Amino acid sequence: MSFKTDILQIIKDESRVVFDKQIEGRFLSDTLGRLVGKADALVFAASTEEVSALLKYADANKISVTPRGAGTNLVGSTVPQNGGIIIDFSKMNKILEFDADTFTATVESGILLKDFQAFVESKGFFYPPDPGEKSASIGGNIATNAGGMRAVKYGVTRDYVRGLEVVLADGSVTWVGSKNVKDASGLSLKNLIIGSEGTLAVITKCILKIIPKPEYSKSVLVPFADLESGISTVQKILFANANPTAVEFVERKVVELGEKFTGIKYPHPEAAAYLLLTFDGKQNEVKENLEIIKNVVLQNGALDFVIPESPERLEEIWKVRGCLVKAVEATSEQEPVDLVVPIDKVAEFIEFVNKTQKKVGMQMVAFGHAGDGNVHLCVVRGSRSEEEWKTELQKNMECVYSKAYELGGLTSGEHGIGLSKRHYFLKETKNTNLQMMNAIKTSLDPHHILNNKISYVL
Amino acid sequence: MSFKTDILQIIKDESRVVFDKQIEGRFLSDTLGRLVGKADALVFAASTEEVSALLKYADANKISVTPRGAGTNLVGSTVPQNGGIIIDFSKMNKILEFDADTFTATVESGILLKDFQAFVESKGFFYPPDPGEKSASIGGNIATNAGGMRAVKYGVTRDYVRGLEVVLADGSVTWVGSKNVKDASGLSLKNLIIGSEGTLAVITKCILKIIPKPEYSKSVLVPFADLESGISTVQKILFANANPTAVEFVERKVVELGEKFTGIKYPHPEAAAYLLLTFDGKQNEVKENLEIIKNVVLQNGALDFVIPESPERLEEIWKVRGCLVKAVEATSEQEPVDLVVPIDKVAEFIEFVNKTQKKVGMQMVAFGHAGDGNVHLCVVRGSRSEEEWKTELQKNMECVYSKAYELGGLTSGEHGIGLSKRHYFLKETKNTNLQMMNAIKTSLDPHHILNNKISYVL
Ligand SMILES: Cc1cc2nc3c(=O)[nH]c(=O)nc-3n(C[C@H](O)[C@H](O)[C@H](O)COP(=O)(O)OP(=O)(O)OC[C@H]3O[C@@H](n4cnc5c(N)ncnc54)[C@H](O)[C@@H]3O)c2cc1C
Ligand SMILES: Cc1cc2nc3c(=O)[nH]c(=O)nc-3n(C[C@H](O)[C@H](O)[C@H](O)COP(=O)(O)OP(=O)(O)OC[C@H]3O[C@@H](n4cnc5c(N)ncnc54)[C@H](O)[C@@H]3O)c2cc1C
Repeated sequence: MSFKTDILQIIKDESRVVFDKQIEGRFLSDTLGRLVGKADALVFAASTEEVSALLKYADANKISVTPRGAGTNLVGSTVPQNGGIIIDFSKMNKILEFDADTFTATVESGILLKDFQAFVESKGFFYPPDPGEKSASIGGNIATNAGGMRAVKYGVTRDYVRGLEVVLADGSVTWVGSKNVKDASGLSLKNLIIGSEGTLAVITKCILKIIPKPEYSKSVLVPFADLESGISTVQKILFANANPTAVEFVERKVVELGEKFTGIKYPHPEAAAYLLLTFDGKQNEVKENLEIIKNVVLQNGALDFVIPESPERLEEIWKVRGCLVKAVEATSEQEPVDLVVPIDKVAEFIEFVNKTQKKVGMQMVAFGHAGDGNVHLCVVRGSRSEEEWKTELQKNMECVYSKAYELGGLTSGEHGIGLSKRHYFLKETKNTNLQMMNAIKTSLDPHHILNNKISYVL
Repeated sequence: MSFKTDILQIIKDESRVVFDKQIEGRFLSDTLGRLVGKADALVFAASTEEVSALLKYADANKISVTPRGAGTNLVGSTVPQNGGIIIDFSKMNKILEFDADTFTATVESGILLKDFQAFVESKGFFYPPDPGEKSASIGGNIATNAGGMRAVKYGVTRDYVRGLEVVLADGSVTWVGSKNVKDASGLSLKNLIIGSEGTLAVITKCILKIIPKPEYSKSVLVPFADLESGISTVQKILFANANPTAVEFVERKVVELGEKFTGIKYPHPEAAAYLLLTFDGKQNEVKENLEIIKNVVLQNGALDFVIPESPERLEEIWKVRGCLVKAVEATSEQEPVDLVVPIDKVAEFIEFVNKTQKKVGMQMVAFGHAGDGNVHLCVVRGSRSEEEWKTELQKNMECVYSKAYELGGLTSGEHGIGLSKRHYFLKETKNTNLQMMNAIKTSLDPHHILNNKISYVL
């Protein structure tokens, strides 16, 4: 029997299968669309049983499989490397159970973050992980251990995953983790799979932890005359015991692009950088914390302490922060970088980036989750030819990553490694650790069918 | 060359090596001392280099290795199963770095929890994990993913481990994790090793997350006339959005043993059960939360809301809670059980335990971390003969674990599986999951030298 007949025997619904040349380009790439792979079939899976049957078939025939959530990743992690089958989860997007008694909700992995957040909030609850792209899927968030805006106080996606239904490479279906809060029962398979970028198992269902909705929340915008004093104030904010939810920083030059992109204006255009802070909790607690932080930032050279006067204005301020990648992208091709360094090294790292930028003439705009050392850079192509861009970017990036590692940092804080950061990750990671990762990969996916040749997979 | 000469060549300090019959019995067991193994050598390691050389040698010669922290575990996880070498970490107990700027401290794995907590608090910081036994080692806490009293608000040991220096079975030394707050860079080897009970790697150094010390803390004791209303109130407390740090529950009959053991009296001896709650944070916040909870518990049948009037009285209250295992143990041999069920199933589970107790006539006293579904049972031997105890205990336990699993629970919430819970864990865990765990074990420890035949290792 041919491959096509086999797939249609498994799926039994032609409307959910696309073959070869019929597959739209966007399914062969990530959200940037620059790295493009190829695939023999794209399947919009509708059930765990289908996913299991597909993997069983693929494993028996050593066919590559690329799991795909919403395809919003920025690192080429959904670019199929060896043809094969793309399993798209966008049709597996149901809420299966809302269980207030255990503070959990169970969903299919393809549900979009924004739909899940809206649902949970409609029930008076709160799902803290808040990565910038709300059209990502929960499965993709888990596969990349997505971070986001509220990680300083609430942690990252990993901290809100209670259990996962997964399908292994050979098609076996099982649950890892559970509704239980604590677990010291054998190896934590759940924690191993979180952040594994689809290389170990395919996620079909997710039990997520939700929490009571904080009753009060306030954001504040703090402009600084120079970048250094802005960044060095972050450390002081973290020390003030005021429990901030978000501590974002952004250079004025990126804000300008964001302003142009959205038509919204930030106050204090004379600033060189802004911190954008959020506090949530009980009303009195938040007010007390705001007072503490107001003193801290004004004592450390802040030009102002601007609390947006209306919900609409608040939304505007965050809209600019949220659009930055796209705003830069609108002016030129850019390479998004998602480094992380220890929190006390952010200032030194940004200084290095700015010096390097001057030296090599490649523009790098910086913003990111300063409260957890997670620095995003947009490296701007400008008018470089394809060839120049490729070689200069790589040289430049090797230098930047090497500095980050020298400071104790890592390749990725939240986007994952995928295809585009793989070169740097393999270069900087200790051989022993790569060997451990590859041995584990082989132990769970002996034929290396799952997302092979991305991330750490040798 | 003989085994002894080999070991002394590696260690070069006779005072830190004990062979065969010279090894004291307590090093061949856990804190209960009932399961006893045998070993050929006990080494008090002094450095990572020594641990590495020992493992290299053991791996080459397929000699079993049992890592040992403070030996306070309750499940036989430090009982050597195949002779070989015990590596004791009690001499690797130094604080290597205190780094306030990144909110971390780096220690050798053998440091005792109480010494680490005291050090951190002397610096104005706070290490939230707080398992009952303060003489456990940090390495042991990490290897078992220890939980404890403050897990409701702060999470478990896993949540405070930033990085680990580990030695693999073949002697390679590497770091997993780092000082960085976020990490989406390849598989989370760190999270895999946490809770692995020494079966995957040996931990030599630990980077731990510390947080600013909460400025205010209050505990409150809440007596209930019957067990059911006490336990069903837990759920209401969790729903009240008052962010409790600890939500412990304990039956009056166990408290009586604790009272006898310590000479301390609890108020309201007519109660059937108590909840013991802690709140910490800013003073106003704690006061507000206490007010909320006072209303909740009094509306749900609490007999009183007792805030200990002095620090000494507070310490007394917690002392009784802390001594319960030992207090039961003082009356009869007992089997400590550390089940976890989803938080909404605690009441049903305890009810089942009490019914079973009546039916089979085996006393089971219950207490534990109600706020996270983590139920401890002491199953009391009483006057049973060795033979009766063995068979009746196993039958009884099979029935209790099976009920816990039926309710969605797990074998262990925080003590681990070790040797004594292995039978139940293997019985209740899905074959696919056991196979995954064992495949991972083999991928990292091909000759199965590390803590073989405990926990999940087949
Ligand atoms: C404007 C913008 C802002 C962003 N901001 C943030 C941010 O603040 N924080 C952050 O962390 N990320 C951010 N991202 C990156 C991206 O949104 C996240 O990586 C997101 O988690 C990807 O989810 P997805 O569903 O789109 O996954 P995809 O892009 O479809 O896939 C990502 C990876 O996960 C795997 N995968 C997907 N679904 C499954 C599954 N069900 N089972 C197994 N493997 C699966 C894929 O194979 C791939 O390796 C941003 C992206 C954009 C475009
Ligand atoms: C009175 C009492 C109260 C307790 N209360 C709690 C509680 O509230 N919460 C809780 O979680 N536990 C509790 N425990 C259980 C026990 O204290 C914990 O399991 C503790 O974490 C064990 O630490 P340890 O150093 O004694 O480890 P050990 O008993 O020495 O070892 C435990 C396991 O960890 C492994 N191990 C130890 N050190 C290393 C290392 N460096 N590298 C690799 N593997 C290693 C061992 O091989 C073994 O498998 C209690 C125990 C007692 C006696």
